[in-house]
Amino acid sequence: MRKVYVLGAGATKYGKLPLTGRELLAQASLDAIHDAGIDASHIEGAFVANAFGMIEKQGHPGPLLMTALGIPDKPATTIEAACASGGAAFREAYINVAAGVADVYLASGVEKITQVDTVTATGYFSYGSDYFCEGGNGASFPGLYATMARAHMQRYGTTEEQLAQVAVKNHDNAALNPKAHLPKRITVEDVMKSLYVAHPLKLYDACPFSDGASAVIVASEEVARRLGKADVQVLGSGRAGSIASLPDRGDMTSIPAARIAGKQAFQQAGLNPGDIDFAEVHDCFTIAELVATEDLGFFKPGEGGKATEQGVTARDGALPINPSGGLKAKGHPVGATGLGQIAEVVWQLRGQAGQRQVPDPEVALTHNVGATGGSCAVHILRRMR
Amino acid sequence: MRKVYVLGAGATKYGKLPLTGRELLAQASLDAIHDAGIDASHIEGAFVANAFGMIEKQGHPGPLLMTALGIPDKPATTIEAACASGGAAFREAYINVAAGVADVYLASGVEKITQVDTVTATGYFSYGSDYFCEGGNGASFPGLYATMARAHMQRYGTTEEQLAQVAVKNHDNAALNPKAHLPKRITVEDVMKSLYVAHPLKLYDACPFSDGASAVIVASEEVARRLGKADVQVLGSGRAGSIASLPDRGDMTSIPAARIAGKQAFQQAGLNPGDIDFAEVHDCFTIAELVATEDLGFFKPGEGGKATEQGVTARDGALPINPSGGLKAKGHPVGATGLGQIAEVVWQLRGQAGQRQVPDPEVALTHNVGATGGSCAVHILRRMR
Repeated sequence: MRKVYVLGAGATKYGKLPLTGRELLAQASLDAIHDAGIDASHIEGAFVANAFGMIEKQGHPGPLLMTALGIPDKPATTIEAACASGGAAFREAYINVAAGVADVYLASGVEKITQVDTVTATGYFSYGSDYFCEGGNGASFPGLYATMARAHMQRYGTTEEQLAQVAVKNHDNAALNPKAHLPKRITVEDVMKSLYVAHPLKLYDACPFSDGASAVIVASEEVARRLGKADVQVLGSGRAGSIASLPDRGDMTSIPAARIAGKQAFQQAGLNPGDIDFAEVHDCFTIAELVATEDLGFFKPGEGGKATEQGVTARDGALPINPSGGLKAKGHPVGATGLGQIAEVVWQLRGQAGQRQVPDPEVALTHNVGATGGSCAVHILRRMR
Repeated sequence: MRKVYVLGAGATKYGKLPLTGRELLAQASLDAIHDAGIDASHIEGAFVANAFGMIEKQGHPGPLLMTALGIPDKPATTIEAACASGGAAFREAYINVAAGVADVYLASGVEKITQVDTVTATGYFSYGSDYFCEGGNGASFPGLYATMARAHMQRYGTTEEQLAQVAVKNHDNAALNPKAHLPKRITVEDVMKSLYVAHPLKLYDACPFSDGASAVIVASEEVARRLGKADVQVLGSGRAGSIASLPDRGDMTSIPAARIAGKQAFQQAGLNPGDIDFAEVHDCFTIAELVATEDLGFFKPGEGGKATEQGVTARDGALPINPSGGLKAKGHPVGATGLGQIAEVVWQLRGQAGQRQVPDPEVALTHNVGATGGSCAVHILRRMR
């Protein structure tokens, strides 16, 4: 396995956007190509993360992207793992370069979903669940994550106010992110007064449905050094699964796939949770961020809420979580989400994150979950100079 | 890059089947596990090829499969490249093992589509086209492949009778394949009398819509040798693309992605087209088989029809093409198709193909196309003892 570096990253703004999926995909990819300082012709292939292409009736986005980039002969394969599609796509691009199959690979993700109403969108999202056991019986993701929240509250005493504080923190960060879908500050009171969507989760505990695209280009060490871009290295990649149906798992306060993928990534990187300077984690609902920070070993089980309350995970805290604003406030264009996490990490490690910059980070982690944890991808990246 | 062997292969019957996609996927995978002589727990991860999961509202089949196999912690990522999804999934499983990420990997593909009528199914298939330019304007795949057939006829004098002979040959082979969707012999007259679906292509020039699943397990050389299963090696893997929209390409008598992917696979294997003993190629329509055999260098451009007419590609000919019956008569359960091609090659190379056995083959090729060639995957496998 060869060393792999991130050459460049790009992203569109997330939100309700007046562009098609193929346009967004091309825009983020061209952004990443520009950031990498390469010509598109150097890209040897791509993975495209996209979960709901059927909404636009475009089920084969790879060749559309490569044609738009002027490199139609290069292969592009769609990767899906529900909401972890982006992280899974990044992993396979990393593996292709690490294996020596290619020197330069693109991972690009997109979603275009805001043209359908939120009930329809919630229905499409539920295809990521075990639909026979869950979605088809009315258990869509707000309900499933609410079940996890309830279990966490009962076992550990986590409070609705602590969940609200996750939302407040991530909105604070998003307010400094020009690409965020919901760049507005909110208060704990705003969250507490918002309508319950699935008790104990309220509207402001949930991420929005977003359009958007993000893209990352990875390269071998030799290519990265030649281009003077060997500044962010991929140190670890973890990928695991869990029993698809949440009710069929023993414990609903933790996601096994996240624990396993996290351990894999830490082991490969030769690092521990204490070595991480900040992380972008999968906060599709506020409870998901607490569970993530516990599953990854940042906090003991049940202590994520307290850590948030104490400001540990704030941008100026000991361990900033989701300085981008996270899925909660930056937005969640499904296929783009995991790649947007990588892009944020790259920009933060380079010191290019503008007003939301975390002070001088060296090592960062991304955590991308599909469904209630049927899939999880964890990556650790390090600034090398 | 390490050497990679196929440990085992499995498949359900193809056809209109009374099982769900998840059941078919598990059945083929268990079949492959049994054939490999391993325990499911040895599998370190999977790629699942599946293009139309939205029909069953199951968009995240990986965890369903791994849960069914009793290994829910292992990662499973969905791979799509329209009708080349299976070949693309096999390639990434191969790369994961070649890279040393894993020693044993599963690639499993499935489609469950016969519950919708053929007009609806044709519509879903057209999502694999450039829908904005093609499908959305009424250019579904019968029409697009008919355009290719017309161009081939005009340039090379290929005849409707030659196309019909492809169908007759593949039905002859399928009649000896207990897993085929359409295991019945037909005549050139049957084809010529069948209704035009898109002139010059008739109903019998087209493959059916099939349900079904196929699965392949690959492993490192060390594992394969330890299990006494180092008998079929993956010698070459090619993967390329073409401009998505057929009308935007200069030449409609050839698929650039197939030529490029073929060259890549031959180069990696250190072989030439003349070294191939038989091939499974992507004959979604009869014209596609002719174009495939020319793109891969088996015959000169325009000579595929004549070769078929002369019996060169028959099961007892100099270069058997689609001894399984091909997509045309064995069937085309999209996600399963490319993996079913690999399974057929494995069984043929081992001498386990029963009545349709090709005499003592040593080297074989698979060719799996997505859409009209937006994606193509080519693999070369060799019997090693």
